[in-house]
Amino acid sequence: MFDDQIIVGSLIRKALEEDLGSGDLTTNATIDPDLKGRASLLARETLVLAGLPVFIKVFRMLSVEIISEDYFEDGQVVQEGEKICQITGPANAILKGERTALNFLQRMSGIATLTKTYVDKVGLQKVRLVDTRKTAPGLRLFDKYAVRMGGGFNHRMGLYDGVLIKDNHISAAGSITNAVDLAKRKVPHTIKVEVEVEDLEALEEAIQAGADVVLLDNMSPHRLKEAVRLSNGRVPLEASGGINLKNIEQIAKTGVDIISVGALTHSAKAVDISLEMIPL
Amino acid sequence: MFDDQIIVGSLIRKALEEDLGSGDLTTNATIDPDLKGRASLLARETLVLAGLPVFIKVFRMLSVEIISEDYFEDGQVVQEGEKICQITGPANAILKGERTALNFLQRMSGIATLTKTYVDKVGLQKVRLVDTRKTAPGLRLFDKYAVRMGGGFNHRMGLYDGVLIKDNHISAAGSITNAVDLAKRKVPHTIKVEVEVEDLEALEEAIQAGADVVLLDNMSPHRLKEAVRLSNGRVPLEASGGINLKNIEQIAKTGVDIISVGALTHSAKAVDISLEMIPL
Amino acid sequence: MFDDQIIVGSLIRKALEEDLGSGDLTTNATIDPDLKGRASLLARETLVLAGLPVFIKVFRMLSVEIISEDYFEDGQVVQEGEKICQITGPANAILKGERTALNFLQRMSGIATLTKTYVDKVGLQKVRLVDTRKTAPGLRLFDKYAVRMGGGFNHRMGLYDGVLIKDNHISAAGSITNAVDLAKRKVPHTIKVEVEVEDLEALEEAIQAGADVVLLDNMSPHRLKEAVRLSNGRVPLEASGGINLKNIEQIAKTGVDIISVGALTHSAKAVDISLEMIPL
Amino acid sequence: MFDDQIIVGSLIRKALEEDLGSGDLTTNATIDPDLKGRASLLARETLVLAGLPVFIKVFRMLSVEIISEDYFEDGQVVQEGEKICQITGPANAILKGERTALNFLQRMSGIATLTKTYVDKVGLQKVRLVDTRKTAPGLRLFDKYAVRMGGGFNHRMGLYDGVLIKDNHISAAGSITNAVDLAKRKVPHTIKVEVEVEDLEALEEAIQAGADVVLLDNMSPHRLKEAVRLSNGRVPLEASGGINLKNIEQIAKTGVDIISVGALTHSAKAVDISLEMIPL
Amino acid sequence: MFDDQIIVGSLIRKALEEDLGSGDLTTNATIDPDLKGRASLLARETLVLAGLPVFIKVFRMLSVEIISEDYFEDGQVVQEGEKICQITGPANAILKGERTALNFLQRMSGIATLTKTYVDKVGLQKVRLVDTRKTAPGLRLFDKYAVRMGGGFNHRMGLYDGVLIKDNHISAAGSITNAVDLAKRKVPHTIKVEVEVEDLEALEEAIQAGADVVLLDNMSPHRLKEAVRLSNGRVPLEASGGINLKNIEQIAKTGVDIISVGALTHSAKAVDISLEMIPL
Amino acid sequence: MFDDQIIVGSLIRKALEEDLGSGDLTTNATIDPDLKGRASLLARETLVLAGLPVFIKVFRMLSVEIISEDYFEDGQVVQEGEKICQITGPANAILKGERTALNFLQRMSGIATLTKTYVDKVGLQKVRLVDTRKTAPGLRLFDKYAVRMGGGFNHRMGLYDGVLIKDNHISAAGSITNAVDLAKRKVPHTIKVEVEVEDLEALEEAIQAGADVVLLDNMSPHRLKEAVRLSNGRVPLEASGGINLKNIEQIAKTGVDIISVGALTHSAKAVDISLEMIPL
Repeated sequence: MFDDQIIVGSLIRKALEEDLGSGDLTTNATIDPDLKGRASLLARETLVLAGLPVFIKVFRMLSVEIISEDYFEDGQVVQEGEKICQITGPANAILKGERTALNFLQRMSGIATLTKTYVDKVGLQKVRLVDTRKTAPGLRLFDKYAVRMGGGFNHRMGLYDGVLIKDNHISAAGSITNAVDLAKRKVPHTIKVEVEVEDLEALEEAIQAGADVVLLDNMSPHRLKEAVRLSNGRVPLEASGGINLKNIEQIAKTGVDIISVGALTHSAKAVDISLEMIPL
Repeated sequence: MFDDQIIVGSLIRKALEEDLGSGDLTTNATIDPDLKGRASLLARETLVLAGLPVFIKVFRMLSVEIISEDYFEDGQVVQEGEKICQITGPANAILKGERTALNFLQRMSGIATLTKTYVDKVGLQKVRLVDTRKTAPGLRLFDKYAVRMGGGFNHRMGLYDGVLIKDNHISAAGSITNAVDLAKRKVPHTIKVEVEVEDLEALEEAIQAGADVVLLDNMSPHRLKEAVRLSNGRVPLEASGGINLKNIEQIAKTGVDIISVGALTHSAKAVDISLEMIPL
Repeated sequence: MFDDQIIVGSLIRKALEEDLGSGDLTTNATIDPDLKGRASLLARETLVLAGLPVFIKVFRMLSVEIISEDYFEDGQVVQEGEKICQITGPANAILKGERTALNFLQRMSGIATLTKTYVDKVGLQKVRLVDTRKTAPGLRLFDKYAVRMGGGFNHRMGLYDGVLIKDNHISAAGSITNAVDLAKRKVPHTIKVEVEVEDLEALEEAIQAGADVVLLDNMSPHRLKEAVRLSNGRVPLEASGGINLKNIEQIAKTGVDIISVGALTHSAKAVDISLEMIPL
Repeated sequence: MFDDQIIVGSLIRKALEEDLGSGDLTTNATIDPDLKGRASLLARETLVLAGLPVFIKVFRMLSVEIISEDYFEDGQVVQEGEKICQITGPANAILKGERTALNFLQRMSGIATLTKTYVDKVGLQKVRLVDTRKTAPGLRLFDKYAVRMGGGFNHRMGLYDGVLIKDNHISAAGSITNAVDLAKRKVPHTIKVEVEVEDLEALEEAIQAGADVVLLDNMSPHRLKEAVRLSNGRVPLEASGGINLKNIEQIAKTGVDIISVGALTHSAKAVDISLEMIPL
Repeated sequence: MFDDQIIVGSLIRKALEEDLGSGDLTTNATIDPDLKGRASLLARETLVLAGLPVFIKVFRMLSVEIISEDYFEDGQVVQEGEKICQITGPANAILKGERTALNFLQRMSGIATLTKTYVDKVGLQKVRLVDTRKTAPGLRLFDKYAVRMGGGFNHRMGLYDGVLIKDNHISAAGSITNAVDLAKRKVPHTIKVEVEVEDLEALEEAIQAGADVVLLDNMSPHRLKEAVRLSNGRVPLEASGGINLKNIEQIAKTGVDIISVGALTHSAKAVDISLEMIPL
Repeated sequence: MFDDQIIVGSLIRKALEEDLGSGDLTTNATIDPDLKGRASLLARETLVLAGLPVFIKVFRMLSVEIISEDYFEDGQVVQEGEKICQITGPANAILKGERTALNFLQRMSGIATLTKTYVDKVGLQKVRLVDTRKTAPGLRLFDKYAVRMGGGFNHRMGLYDGVLIKDNHISAAGSITNAVDLAKRKVPHTIKVEVEVEDLEALEEAIQAGADVVLLDNMSPHRLKEAVRLSNGRVPLEASGGINLKNIEQIAKTGVDIISVGALTHSAKAVDISLEMIPL
């Protein structure tokens, strides 16, 4: 699933440490260490699944004896009431990991579910819905993975794998042309240079300067259409700013190539999923 | 602000590493390292502020020359359009830290703002609104701090600083009485023992067994009132499960002492705050 | 055994790094990597065992081929001369881990053994013998686990899972009543509030203020009895300060509920245990 | 003081994290963050001071505003009742760091004080009293530093900076001669080769084989004298095993060059030191 | 200098820990802690400087009292015999940090110096000389920074900030066209897609498939010229494989846009720089 | 192989994180996760192998399904064109680990190969060729291991496991005699004291003072012979400074016991090794 199990493992460990601290007082006091349990993971609402491998890994970090049987995989739609997977193993590992595992899964599935709602709105348009860097600190890999599971795409992962020239960079460099030129000269040739513009004049300058992509900041659908006409396929165009479920369809129809939506990751609600264990 | 600057500092460092990775390509290519800037932090909607010290610390980790002037402090209401603080220092530090700093602040203020909405609904009732452990993995200290800034209270921080006996613990121990007894015998005497019950019979057994607090799971307002009457002040009662902005007022009026709401931390939306820099 | 294998594993790794540094010069120079060995762990004095799982984990971190056969488990009394367990596996892993493994085991069993001596002195009194936070820096989880293995109980694990209001908190808050009130209002409802007092007047104020537990600091047995009489069961009472093997029995008879002894962890002597390996 | 502030700083941070966890509930609830305090560190018994810089660094990690005035320095004898130093700064930093700082100082001064007792027993003999690797896991640098402050010397710090050939190495190598030969050929030329022997025949073989130092394991004073006579100054001799305050003087008089005592670090008692704060 | 002081600081700390271990025995035994020193950094051969800020930071990690006076900055040519900078501060910090600081500086300046040799060979051609991922494990940021200081450019920093489709990816995807298509659909739009080809047919397919850059693997100058003619400016072309100081000029003249040379980082020799301290 | 798998594992993890970052874009986009591959490791030039276990561990960190078949082991000479080992397992793990694994192996084998060239030059002389601390920061354990595989020996690993008194230590201590005396008194008795001298007078003083080894800095072969004659076997002598492949034979013949060469680790070139995978 994730590219880098190494990073993911370390994030899961931190989350477990955060919840367990000096020990699970309740489980240690009341649960026989030899007790086994079987737990069912149930969707309490219809959702797009994201994070199931993370969910399972949480328990396996607590006990290598944990076994899981999966009925769905990430990216699939699960209907309300359906059983997502079944976990079997030491009851204390299940109880200790439950909240942490659900916190990952409910957040990630929440993001995937919200993303799919946006994607469905865009419908048949050939537009790429992308996320932003507005993610929960420390959880970016998870948040952006969830966007992909919901049918969206990722914008750059951080400041290191893409150039996005904004107003402050432009004013410091003197002009769009200068800023693009500086970036093209200095960054690896494997990286594209994207420029954020606020009007059509700037769009034209960015294209002329050799921008690989142009971000159209906070433009109305009307203005976006003009931008599409002006660019005329010379560069991919990204619409950004103030986009929501109400206006995304209209914006998709303007002909832009990419639409970025911060809400996918900064304001998704956790979906309702429960884990119910029975002792064996 | 936070109790433990040591933990907070390490979380901020991780978040910066996540965004900066091998370097901010854009800023490094276009911004003169000697350029200074001044940035204003503006509320784009009315909000309860939480996380300002974290916001500032992000920049100070990037440069010790960063100076801030604060116009508000955590816990205060900021009206739409008001200026929250002003940051002055090296422009590249401001640009590199901007997104990470805002990600912290917008999430935390989002939680504080939502919490205050709940607190205001409860109104004059003598009820303690508390959070849960349904927080973003790795960010629990921040999430729970934000709840306090919004006027709420914290439930236990993790599995280590409170006992909460649930159905699985009860069935493993044989009965509520046994489970409470085991917990009371084994956990430090500084920790209270809370029991989750689903009906009045169980409530009575928990009280008899010596529970320090009882959580009433998913009960209707009517049932909650009966529970309050039954308990008659013998233990504090916590209402939990399915509580939202529509029904919290009614639940508060049942006479319970504590109401816990997972949504405070798992489904708060980021509030809209912007940072605008001018070069000096 | 321990609640959190994650934390324990990281502490053991640190301890191994501390001893191995850039490598075990002697073993690397003289021991054939293919040589197997069998080692017996022998009690050189009668002791209460604590830390056997830690002892074994040290070796297993160095080689997954290590196998152990245990003849005792933590919490049991081992007589002088008895064999505690047998380790079989690569000889170099046994030799490299020996000192680190014994350092854990001898310290922990030393604490457990001393604790049992105190517990035996208390005899039939219904008193809970507890430890303090006077533990070796970095080893608190191990030290406090060992106390439990010796028949003792744990006081709070740290500053985060219990309130203990001392003189400085009282003077800053203005009075015992104010301090208790502040604590009760601010800390999670899962945490008890304990107050340290030095005389009976303060005890009465603490009880009136709603303290959940009261610590009687450095009181004579006579005074402790008066305190028990005054409290009359309204709150659990903890005797603390200057308690040793000579006076603990007398103090236990005063009727206090809890006795805390710092020496359990800050001044326990290592017990004598040896590991003897034969090549296979 | 310590060579490597980097390592020391990281150990102190771990210790603080261990005690503070998610926060100091009591101090946060009751102490005004602006309150300043002054604390006196007092010797409750006569002791050899060790660890004062560590003690102070604990507080400075919590607040850079902490100032200290030192009346003694490490290695000095402090009489019962004397004031060791004075700490001034934010009251909450003083209260939060107190226990951790004292845990370091009391353990280290305990080791230094015990070491001095041994050193004084040896008296005028030209013998080097050394420690062993029987230290608290994770605290070896601190424990061994304390031994030096008490007038003792350090044996090797770990398995990496000295060769000590024991019975298992000898039997695996075939003979003392082979083992010494292997070690001399393989380890850096900056490291000495020490061999542990149990009788005089083995001593002679070790010397012939070119051992740089020989450890005489568990020999009686009589046998030690014979060993000294046999060696006749060809190599330094270390007496080890079963040495205590009762027999060390006699052993020192046998003419051995080095005496190693595990009890210095594995069984030293914490000395009694208190910190008393007054609000300013 | 470096973008991310946070990462750099942690690498320097690791390097210091590696050299200092449990302490600098020699300096601790012989140097008075109060002794100050002044050290001159001298070029023993003509070189391109890279890593001076790292060099200085090593010492400042050991003591905040270290002051430096710089006579050159990174990227400048220093003639044999010239003084690069002067360090003043505690003598023990200078002696403890010397080797680690020089190890960084000599390696980085070695890479920069070698890079400049290559750049000078290329001369007036409009070719971008780039590095590869053939760097010392753990030191990539330093190695690649040094390439820039020598006048070279960076290829992608790792597997995460650029796509380079090689033979295995092509055969797994079925064809160049499929592989490019998969990459273009899945990776962020901020990333370019580069394809490695071994003949002109593949070059044509890659261009048709929409590759943003094409790497021409191990082609002769003659073949490279044909590739340049075939591409005719449709995509930037990178020559790679078997390029050295003897043939780079000829390759540069073929008209390719980029030349990558692994030797810049995997086989640069350390340049000769010495640090000479005098006590003050 | 290495003594301490714990340290080695952590260095490999860091190297993988450095290359993988937020994920291998190319492999993730184009390789089916279920695809298996078999890769052959081929020597492209004749070399001394060093680092094969590290090479394999890189892949096994990415997937526990990786299996290797080794045809050579560390320390052996591999002829150009020979196959070193074969790796079988998930294709994506092979592709993701390839560059990192080769970076370790090529550097280490480069050092071993260069070392063997030096060792062969020394020929039959009874001289120990040793490395220095001039290693790549963070890679010292690997670099020094490679020297041993090439037939060389290690000098001290760091500042912590050997004393080397240089001019600054001497001038601070007042004289060679004082410096040796201080060191002998303060460092563990397991450590030798080496002194660096520049003339024969100093050599004599060092020997008289009790130095265990003397380093002869930058002396001509003629002068080295005089030093050997003067020492007359009283202490081992180490020649250091300005030693290269041209003069080492002559220096070896002077009769010194040890020759140290910094170039072994600071200027070895990576050897040419390739990994070629075929899908299964």
